[in-house]
Amino acid sequence: MRVKIALLEKGIEVQYKEEKDVFEDKNKSELLLNSNPIHKKVPVLIHNGKTICESLIILEYIDEVWKQEQQLFSADPYCRANARFWIDFFDKKITSCAKKLWASKGEEQGAAKEEFLEFLKVLENELGEKPYFGGDHFALLDIALIPITCRFYTYEKLCKFSVEEECPKLMEWVRRCNMRDSVSKTLPDPLKVFDFVLEVKKRYQIE
Amino acid sequence: MRVKIALLEKGIEVQYKEEKDVFEDKNKSELLLNSNPIHKKVPVLIHNGKTICESLIILEYIDEVWKQEQQLFSADPYCRANARFWIDFFDKKITSCAKKLWASKGEEQGAAKEEFLEFLKVLENELGEKPYFGGDHFALLDIALIPITCRFYTYEKLCKFSVEEECPKLMEWVRRCNMRDSVSKTLPDPLKVFDFVLEVKKRYQIE
Repeated sequence: MRVKIALLEKGIEVQYKEEKDVFEDKNKSELLLNSNPIHKKVPVLIHNGKTICESLIILEYIDEVWKQEQQLFSADPYCRANARFWIDFFDKKITSCAKKLWASKGEEQGAAKEEFLEFLKVLENELGEKPYFGGDHFALLDIALIPITCRFYTYEKLCKFSVEEECPKLMEWVRRCNMRDSVSKTLPDPLKVFDFVLEVKKRYQIE
Repeated sequence: MRVKIALLEKGIEVQYKEEKDVFEDKNKSELLLNSNPIHKKVPVLIHNGKTICESLIILEYIDEVWKQEQQLFSADPYCRANARFWIDFFDKKITSCAKKLWASKGEEQGAAKEEFLEFLKVLENELGEKPYFGGDHFALLDIALIPITCRFYTYEKLCKFSVEEECPKLMEWVRRCNMRDSVSKTLPDPLKVFDFVLEVKKRYQIE
């Protein structure tokens, strides 16, 4: 989703190939396995015959190659470092915690919920009164953070909380981002995400 | 160590403050806790009153601010993406595996040893016949990878293997890097690292 949003923001056309099953290595395409033999994961960008893997690395690559289009990254080294810091925070802390919201139960799920809300408040605090994380413009950090928000409905249903109540400014930012075509065209319907997660839970027998 | 090497390569002078205890939050300095409240971890670079955290982010910041000096990062977007990919691989996969080499025992340690050697071979394969990871010049990826090599002696002693035997070309690269002042002045003596790890094992009762 990060890469799709970035490509749409930049107006770069790509030939898009969807992986049918991203869970089981045996069901992954030859193209994916050959392009990213180390992690065997999407997304992969193939450009001029070279493969670029890992979403953040692809975003930086896109921004460096297509310099003429709207820049995703600030030109200021400190702002760049700050954006990288928060993306790293998200990838290291929030992603694994969010997984526990649907893939665990009981006490573990309860602890993950507390932690998740704490993380969201840290992010809301970083957003402050700005319309976007980077300031006045939708940019790299917004692109990196917005995809998870399509799972908020699922997390709220499964763990019984309301992001709107806990982090109202963050939800304003979610709505602001969703008014952009790049975001609304990319993020799936939260209700469909919920159905999908219920199916995954069944498949892996997480009740 | 990454940051120290980068600063030495760039010829940037800093006022260096060592943390006496990086394990227990209660023993960490006020300066560290205030500068990096999210992770409470070293390294932190304070420049023009602003704090930059996380070693890789600091390296990118240094390279972007001190542009006149020897560039750590290639100017080519694909080479940059490739360096980022391998640093990410190292940080995600090798760091946690390496910890198990000294912090676990029995079967877990044995499995970590197999995995660690596999990872080193992946890196050796990426190095290929080049003198440095980025090609002819000591650069970002070398800086990111070289610090762990001062712990090879410890891992070899604890887990009974020889990096020289398993990955001779990687060891040639280690010796090549150690001929640089920036590296030899930064990396501690492997024998002292071994003594330190033995003390940590005692402290946390890992026998």
